[in-house]
Amino acid sequence: MSEELYTMKEAMLYSQRIAQLSKALWKAVEKDWQSWIKPYDLNINEHHILWIAFHLKGASISDVAKFGVMHVSTAFNFSKKLEERGLLKFSKRDDDKRNTYVELTDAGNDLILLMYEHYHDTHHSILTGSLALRELYGRFPEFLDVMAVIRNIYGDDFIEIFERSFDNFKESLEKVEEKASIPQ
Amino acid sequence: MSEELYTMKEAMLYSQRIAQLSKALWKAVEKDWQSWIKPYDLNINEHHILWIAFHLKGASISDVAKFGVMHVSTAFNFSKKLEERGLLKFSKRDDDKRNTYVELTDAGNDLILLMYEHYHDTHHSILTGSLALRELYGRFPEFLDVMAVIRNIYGDDFIEIFERSFDNFKESLEKVEEKASIPQ
Repeated sequence: MSEELYTMKEAMLYSQRIAQLSKALWKAVEKDWQSWIKPYDLNINEHHILWIAFHLKGASISDVAKFGVMHVSTAFNFSKKLEERGLLKFSKRDDDKRNTYVELTDAGNDLILLMYEHYHDTHHSILTGSLALRELYGRFPEFLDVMAVIRNIYGDDFIEIFERSFDNFKESLEKVEEKASIPQ
Repeated sequence: MSEELYTMKEAMLYSQRIAQLSKALWKAVEKDWQSWIKPYDLNINEHHILWIAFHLKGASISDVAKFGVMHVSTAFNFSKKLEERGLLKFSKRDDDKRNTYVELTDAGNDLILLMYEHYHDTHHSILTGSLALRELYGRFPEFLDVMAVIRNIYGDDFIEIFERSFDNFKESLEKVEEKASIPQ
């Protein structure tokens, strides 16, 4: 059998493995996420939009769609709903008249912080499922191979936004920590 | 600040990273999967049930639900639809009267094989996104840390079913290969 044939088999096995794994992983994440946000009357898309707007300190609808892996129309429609609830506001930027931007209102900002305060009120199976790795490695795993695959699929700018959002996230957690307002 | 506080911050950052990553990965997988199965008038749940029944050489509804990460009622209802289409049949096993089992009919079996023959007719972003890693490692990545997390969340039996299904998958691909019927 040819080299190519072998590769087709290998490729099929590999991508089917990833399909199973990523479905199982995502379903666990989705369940954790839903139980965390349930008290706040938000769905995952809505919370994700708030999350992105918070961590990017404002974002264009197309960035929200790209980074949130949702259709532009989904990003726009849920942003509208969040605007109606007073959590988000739309704006144009002087340096970019073509795109619509969203940023959090004070109420939206407070909600995100409140939700972080209560993050550990619900169970996160992803966390308990990772503790053994944390003990083994001395820190949580980084899934660098998954990151590499995602970089190739979604592009460098996706990873750039990803890293920027987590830098801001870290910073905002440090601020909260300084105020020592994370409940023990 | 206490050790515990640091850990809470670290845990929150980690699990939010995984949430973003796993959503992006799953959305890519989902899109690939949907474009592959589209010509066969199946949704992902239906194809997943056929996939599991094929690779496990028959499975109980509760195994389908567990391994397919879907509700038992979802597994049952879609199995019923597949039965109506003549692709699946229900049975009881003599050694296990309590559980309902599903297995593929000849038509279901033929459909799965036909779909594999046409696997490479559609684009799989997961594959193209992994080629650079394959070149680097000499083989596709195994995501062993993801596997470890999934094992902790879903249990050893999930991984055991996982490995069994891929052993059978490999075997069935080798049979197809012997017949040299995979189109080049």
